[in-house]
Amino acid sequence: MTRFNQPLGGNDMPRFGGPATMMRLPSQPTAEGLDVAFIGIPMDIGTSNRPGTRLGPRQIRDESRMLRPYNMATGAAPFEHLQVADIGDVPINTFDLKKSVDIITAFYAGVLAHGAIPLTMGGDHTLTWPILRAIRAKHGPVALIHIDAHADINDTMFGEKVAHGCPFRRAWEDDCLINDKVFQIGLRGTGYSPDDFDWGRQHGWTVVQAEDCWHMTLKPLIAGIREKIGDAPVYISYDIDSLDPAFAPGTGTVEPGGLTIWQALELLRGCAGLNIVGGDLVEVSPPYDPSGNTALIGANLLYEMLCVLPGVPQGR
Amino acid sequence: MTRFNQPLGGNDMPRFGGPATMMRLPSQPTAEGLDVAFIGIPMDIGTSNRPGTRLGPRQIRDESRMLRPYNMATGAAPFEHLQVADIGDVPINTFDLKKSVDIITAFYAGVLAHGAIPLTMGGDHTLTWPILRAIRAKHGPVALIHIDAHADINDTMFGEKVAHGCPFRRAWEDDCLINDKVFQIGLRGTGYSPDDFDWGRQHGWTVVQAEDCWHMTLKPLIAGIREKIGDAPVYISYDIDSLDPAFAPGTGTVEPGGLTIWQALELLRGCAGLNIVGGDLVEVSPPYDPSGNTALIGANLLYEMLCVLPGVPQGR
Amino acid sequence: MTRFNQPLGGNDMPRFGGPATMMRLPSQPTAEGLDVAFIGIPMDIGTSNRPGTRLGPRQIRDESRMLRPYNMATGAAPFEHLQVADIGDVPINTFDLKKSVDIITAFYAGVLAHGAIPLTMGGDHTLTWPILRAIRAKHGPVALIHIDAHADINDTMFGEKVAHGCPFRRAWEDDCLINDKVFQIGLRGTGYSPDDFDWGRQHGWTVVQAEDCWHMTLKPLIAGIREKIGDAPVYISYDIDSLDPAFAPGTGTVEPGGLTIWQALELLRGCAGLNIVGGDLVEVSPPYDPSGNTALIGANLLYEMLCVLPGVPQGR
Amino acid sequence: MTRFNQPLGGNDMPRFGGPATMMRLPSQPTAEGLDVAFIGIPMDIGTSNRPGTRLGPRQIRDESRMLRPYNMATGAAPFEHLQVADIGDVPINTFDLKKSVDIITAFYAGVLAHGAIPLTMGGDHTLTWPILRAIRAKHGPVALIHIDAHADINDTMFGEKVAHGCPFRRAWEDDCLINDKVFQIGLRGTGYSPDDFDWGRQHGWTVVQAEDCWHMTLKPLIAGIREKIGDAPVYISYDIDSLDPAFAPGTGTVEPGGLTIWQALELLRGCAGLNIVGGDLVEVSPPYDPSGNTALIGANLLYEMLCVLPGVPQGR
Amino acid sequence: MTRFNQPLGGNDMPRFGGPATMMRLPSQPTAEGLDVAFIGIPMDIGTSNRPGTRLGPRQIRDESRMLRPYNMATGAAPFEHLQVADIGDVPINTFDLKKSVDIITAFYAGVLAHGAIPLTMGGDHTLTWPILRAIRAKHGPVALIHIDAHADINDTMFGEKVAHGCPFRRAWEDDCLINDKVFQIGLRGTGYSPDDFDWGRQHGWTVVQAEDCWHMTLKPLIAGIREKIGDAPVYISYDIDSLDPAFAPGTGTVEPGGLTIWQALELLRGCAGLNIVGGDLVEVSPPYDPSGNTALIGANLLYEMLCVLPGVPQGR
Amino acid sequence: MTRFNQPLGGNDMPRFGGPATMMRLPSQPTAEGLDVAFIGIPMDIGTSNRPGTRLGPRQIRDESRMLRPYNMATGAAPFEHLQVADIGDVPINTFDLKKSVDIITAFYAGVLAHGAIPLTMGGDHTLTWPILRAIRAKHGPVALIHIDAHADINDTMFGEKVAHGCPFRRAWEDDCLINDKVFQIGLRGTGYSPDDFDWGRQHGWTVVQAEDCWHMTLKPLIAGIREKIGDAPVYISYDIDSLDPAFAPGTGTVEPGGLTIWQALELLRGCAGLNIVGGDLVEVSPPYDPSGNTALIGANLLYEMLCVLPGVPQGR
Ligand SMILES: [Mn+2]
Ligand SMILES: [Mn+2]
Ligand SMILES: [Mn+2]
Ligand SMILES: [Mn+2]
Ligand SMILES: [Mn+2]
Ligand SMILES: [Mn+2]
Ligand SMILES: [Mn+2]
Ligand SMILES: [Mn+2]
Ligand SMILES: [Mn+2]
Ligand SMILES: [Mn+2]
Ligand SMILES: [Mn+2]
Ligand SMILES: [Mn+2]
Repeated sequence: MTRFNQPLGGNDMPRFGGPATMMRLPSQPTAEGLDVAFIGIPMDIGTSNRPGTRLGPRQIRDESRMLRPYNMATGAAPFEHLQVADIGDVPINTFDLKKSVDIITAFYAGVLAHGAIPLTMGGDHTLTWPILRAIRAKHGPVALIHIDAHADINDTMFGEKVAHGCPFRRAWEDDCLINDKVFQIGLRGTGYSPDDFDWGRQHGWTVVQAEDCWHMTLKPLIAGIREKIGDAPVYISYDIDSLDPAFAPGTGTVEPGGLTIWQALELLRGCAGLNIVGGDLVEVSPPYDPSGNTALIGANLLYEMLCVLPGVPQGR
Repeated sequence: MTRFNQPLGGNDMPRFGGPATMMRLPSQPTAEGLDVAFIGIPMDIGTSNRPGTRLGPRQIRDESRMLRPYNMATGAAPFEHLQVADIGDVPINTFDLKKSVDIITAFYAGVLAHGAIPLTMGGDHTLTWPILRAIRAKHGPVALIHIDAHADINDTMFGEKVAHGCPFRRAWEDDCLINDKVFQIGLRGTGYSPDDFDWGRQHGWTVVQAEDCWHMTLKPLIAGIREKIGDAPVYISYDIDSLDPAFAPGTGTVEPGGLTIWQALELLRGCAGLNIVGGDLVEVSPPYDPSGNTALIGANLLYEMLCVLPGVPQGR
Repeated sequence: MTRFNQPLGGNDMPRFGGPATMMRLPSQPTAEGLDVAFIGIPMDIGTSNRPGTRLGPRQIRDESRMLRPYNMATGAAPFEHLQVADIGDVPINTFDLKKSVDIITAFYAGVLAHGAIPLTMGGDHTLTWPILRAIRAKHGPVALIHIDAHADINDTMFGEKVAHGCPFRRAWEDDCLINDKVFQIGLRGTGYSPDDFDWGRQHGWTVVQAEDCWHMTLKPLIAGIREKIGDAPVYISYDIDSLDPAFAPGTGTVEPGGLTIWQALELLRGCAGLNIVGGDLVEVSPPYDPSGNTALIGANLLYEMLCVLPGVPQGR
Repeated sequence: MTRFNQPLGGNDMPRFGGPATMMRLPSQPTAEGLDVAFIGIPMDIGTSNRPGTRLGPRQIRDESRMLRPYNMATGAAPFEHLQVADIGDVPINTFDLKKSVDIITAFYAGVLAHGAIPLTMGGDHTLTWPILRAIRAKHGPVALIHIDAHADINDTMFGEKVAHGCPFRRAWEDDCLINDKVFQIGLRGTGYSPDDFDWGRQHGWTVVQAEDCWHMTLKPLIAGIREKIGDAPVYISYDIDSLDPAFAPGTGTVEPGGLTIWQALELLRGCAGLNIVGGDLVEVSPPYDPSGNTALIGANLLYEMLCVLPGVPQGR
Repeated sequence: MTRFNQPLGGNDMPRFGGPATMMRLPSQPTAEGLDVAFIGIPMDIGTSNRPGTRLGPRQIRDESRMLRPYNMATGAAPFEHLQVADIGDVPINTFDLKKSVDIITAFYAGVLAHGAIPLTMGGDHTLTWPILRAIRAKHGPVALIHIDAHADINDTMFGEKVAHGCPFRRAWEDDCLINDKVFQIGLRGTGYSPDDFDWGRQHGWTVVQAEDCWHMTLKPLIAGIREKIGDAPVYISYDIDSLDPAFAPGTGTVEPGGLTIWQALELLRGCAGLNIVGGDLVEVSPPYDPSGNTALIGANLLYEMLCVLPGVPQGR
Repeated sequence: MTRFNQPLGGNDMPRFGGPATMMRLPSQPTAEGLDVAFIGIPMDIGTSNRPGTRLGPRQIRDESRMLRPYNMATGAAPFEHLQVADIGDVPINTFDLKKSVDIITAFYAGVLAHGAIPLTMGGDHTLTWPILRAIRAKHGPVALIHIDAHADINDTMFGEKVAHGCPFRRAWEDDCLINDKVFQIGLRGTGYSPDDFDWGRQHGWTVVQAEDCWHMTLKPLIAGIREKIGDAPVYISYDIDSLDPAFAPGTGTVEPGGLTIWQALELLRGCAGLNIVGGDLVEVSPPYDPSGNTALIGANLLYEMLCVLPGVPQGR
């Protein structure tokens, strides 16, 4: 018998029943007493093409129902070492994006005040900026592992400072990032000019375009990143559109030629040992995901983040 | 301010967020202290054609998120008068249908011991028999309003006594029903012989075939039923396939030529004043319901049942 | 025990198994020895908008698996009185529409030579013309009950004489029809001029526009038609798009404001007593029918045609 | 040969080809020289439940490709009497709803300055308020025929004044409406209190709940409305969710028990003779409409609005 | 001209027509006279998460319609060397899983008595155990090539011995397997403990986790397996969920990070030369496969099994 | 400010609005004044299995809306160097395939007379033959890079010379090809005999089967091809089914084991420097592509062709 929350098991309740919380974990209204809090941000008003990420948290939770507690690949058993719960959704204002980002920052300040590590189910990528603001208030600037098809460093979109293409520009302006410890992986597609990817480089960021990842394992890449980050606090932001759409069709701004799921797992598993202070999985759009598999993969990637958090031993 | 549980409002949390409980009500593990308990039975192993009703409770809850507390048509405000919660799912044994029916009866005995009225989200129609067994243990035989495309009174299916085509035969054998107060409405389609519908008639049941409902209001029908039932305890079993598939495409044993949604609402709203001791909404199959609207309608029909329970005043 | 072919029963094989023939009937390569032959015509190269009817026969057969032998509404038990089988598909030339119509006529000449009544699963509506040519060769001109959103009497489409908008013009030119016994029901929508519907009227046909069917039973209409046809041989051509798309979403040339399924059943059941020499159900397009229900309804309507063929007693 | 723009015909280009404009009409950048302008407003950031209406204009245009110029039911031939074109979309700011409403008002002021009647493809219902502001500037207060499942008269949603549940409250505040000539038809479902529907009544509006429309023709209703409006300028706002979801599944805030398509056509056709100054069709959400039929019906309803505009003779 | 059954060719009947048998082969009621029998087992009551595999055999057959007789990659021409037919489905009892496994064993005993090699279209993975029981009765213990995301060696699920997570535990108990010739390939995901994969290892089985297959050809792996098996009789059990969900989205217990289709083809083609006595393809769930491609791939993999059966020459 | 047409930018109009032309470019009725013309051919009557490619051009245009002008991987900025527009669709005769091919040839003769390079959105693969006829009339025989799962060199299908399995046989007969500069890449699957792939080899063509592409970069392959072609005029024909269905599910004749999207991008990007005189992207079937991603990938691949046309500088 364990002292920590456990996911409701398949031998206690069929997997298609039970609470529709993340991994069928207990829910609680705040992060009090938690090591890790799963949080949903049901938002899509920051998206620029297809909508639908507002329903991401609901479907990620729904499709997380198959997840069992033990990681067969890495030997991680996070629920033996961490108190984890689902603390529900941030009540964003779906009619006002600018107010929503402030609601998010305030919500995460509360979570962090309890000492919990937030793992976020998005929602569109706009949400990472307000989370990073809260993270900075507690931890100072952080290293960033940002996996995405897009750089998301536009100064504005349609003249607006707040949108899903701008969060890392805003976070940079707010001194949330340790510039020489920022890593963007998987970028590709079409743009307006080379600056779309070079802006980060000009500020000391490491940008690994998707083409440089094709046909290979990414274990060396993440090993190098791990070394460069050292023991700095690090935030992981995983945009599901970093994956090629073959692996994650249900998203809004699709770019062919992306990462594989094997590379995604290598990257996240390779984060073990880092001082992770938070993470998110964004841009799952259920209306474009009739099988539910994109949400299911999103749930798995969040579980992989959980498995590499500080305090979870690795290995078999 | 009210002393009863309230659905989480759309001004407190966007409707696409919040807990995926029925109507975003609070959840609790038992029926203790409740007037009404919403219960899920995630089961489809009793189905004979398309599967998928195992996911019915999850999707009905998901699509119930739009439901607001007040019934604009009838003036019912159930949450002003009843303590209602979602008590989760019955942990059926998905590998053994015969064991599952006993699990269900035991679960409902517990609910009824708390004095709560159970409103069930199915799940395939097999589940009504074990519920009626528990109902009988508390209330004795009951009147039955059974709305369905099918009579569900087969002695056996494929040689088996337990299947979604047999619950009312089993309930009759178990003396769960007051035979002259049993009403089956909406029956139609193809069968093996006239006995499929006449068996009930031979036992005193009233069978109203779908053809006798076409092109008309059903207010007189339900008024007559209400009168015949009087103050006997009554159970409502609503099979979503009673509706024509135009209105409820997401189900497993589809029969064209069914009831309209307007008739369904008339029937349920016409139950106000009856001594309802339980109800169910069965046979929603999410994999055949890509828009989610069949589950949404199921959620609405369960809400309409809630609105006519004893203790809820009607009218504007 | 009966001497006729029977649909494979649900107690012998689960309904989701067994042969994917119409109603899980036996198949045979020709119509020899049959009273009624179900025939598929997998064709969509005559369609002018959405494609997909080439897959109609396959999905109608698949979704026919729920059909049991006895008609609960009318008491018809066709398999007690008729030898029925599925004789497979016509090998149309999918690269040449004009050749395909000749292939169809030749195929049906063979079927009719065996004395079988053909019931056809379409396929786009082009196919009715070549069938009527074969019918005429055997029976002479026939009465026609044509239920459709469209008149299908264009002289040409895109300059072509053979297309799904022209079959009844061609049949008229070929003297296949008894003009004062032609009935077109359900016509509506947009067109190029009043002639689209008036052409038939000018030739003695009775055209009942959909608007004249709204909000009412069609029993009187079909009773009148029955009287006017008398004992003339009659062909029934049922275009699934006659139904409002609420009832039959999976079709290619959708017109809102159509017939209801209750009206469709009234019309077909009202044909009992007529000297029916053939019938078809056309324009089911599976790619636009994710639930499969349009095909299922098509299968039911074909079964209703079977139930009113000469030799099948009605009534309970 | 006609002097007006004509929809591209099916004999010139297959219906699945050609420009994806409304009815395959010519497009032009402004309303100059037009009697009627079709306009898209690709917006869903005002929606409170399911998203997706941002894609409404694109799919309505796509599915309008079947529409031919002549109305077979009413004899209207709008392209013989009016110069009509598609002038594209309003460039709303998808990241800021409040700015978007001002963009819309300015855009429509331009359209109205050219003397064109705007027919709008939505987009969520928020858009009607800014259109009515522009209408008022030209025409003064107008009569309103508002067909919807919802009253859309909330003072605020989530504390916000601009949302798809508030447009008619805002329009009322802005003196856009002639209160005794406001008609709301089809309202139903759940709410927070009777005020949801009574607010309008208290201001002189006529509110016809859906229940009062069941099982009947609405020709008398619209005839009475026509008489009450007289020759006042009138705006028609058609929310597709007024239809029961059987007829229009692809929308965001679904309420069972709605109007039929036959009633919808009666209402719109019954507007002939009114002094219509504008109209919209809102809330089509393509991601919830896999067959495309909801958009197709939306396109048809817009065409019916076109057919009853001043200057189009009715009747056959 | 050949003496063996041939798939119906695309030049004789369009591929979207013809019988919906496996590869459009002739059907016959028993395995008499056959070298190879395709058999469907329409079962999903052993599944623990998503349902739907009951419809697997029907959709695999439907989507097999594109398969031509000659293997362009390997030069195999199985229909030149083997008499093959589709013998339909096993009439499982869908209401009782435990009875179904006995029905399956009896059915396969009959097939094997005719000397035919069974190739099975599933159906959930529960079915492999009863097949292996029949295989053992004829051939004694066999080598096993089991390709799957899961080990399927649970002692029980929800307390039950018969479920889709248990077949190889049951087969082991029944001495169906040659333990040092059991190979499990593709295992991954989450579990309850390391034992999930190590149990087999402890009994001498070779377990190749998915992670050890990433980014590489599997030709060396299968070559090694071939050598270790030698001329022992071997059974191939292919769970479609071994493939990464990018390649096979339509299945019930999805695990990201799986095998590629190229690896799957390498593995099956690498079985040429083995003494294969049977094979199955399981866990295709059509309701989660809207394009039909998962079933199509399942059909192809079964064809590849056919191409490596004893008696079929390889190579070009 | 540039003198060439530019795609409508996302900061001028939300990407889900604006004209549904290719890349939201301006449209014009002819190729006059253009360097490059995007052209749609809405045809599927040449397909032999699933239909739907008639809607390919519409959905490719719709999903092209995300494409920005600059190629982040290659540095190509085609709209800085070429005048590009969308000239709409070829008005094929959807009821007569043989007439359609002549319509296509005539249309392309007109385009080529203006000196524009045609980039074609299909449509089924039949269309390449009539395009190549027009190309030959202007350029003489051309080199061919044909990427496909199929050789498409059948002499006939169902006895017909014109079908989507025959275009390159016809083109060869018409002397459209420089035989030693024909390259077919990605061929695989099942066939009737080795000749299916060897026919081309016997005529000097280079055929690279899919199996020879697995697990590797294709940069060396395309480099070799580039060298062999030299400065001959070259036509690129890209059948979307060359991609494994994981990457492009929405097509009609699916063959597992195909190319990856990374290989596709390598092949097209590797064409830079060639004297490309035309290209097509064929066989996208929207009804089998519920997410729209196959069309989106098709749009991207056409953009990549644009980026390597003569006159577009490469590199960063
Ligand atoms: Mn992003
Ligand atoms: Mn992104
Ligand atoms: Mn039932
Ligand atoms: Mn039923
Ligand atoms: Mn027709
Ligand atoms: Mn029609
Ligand atoms: Mn509204
Ligand atoms: Mn509304
Ligand atoms: Mn398995
Ligand atoms: Mn498995
Ligand atoms: Mn091809
Ligand atoms: Mn191909």
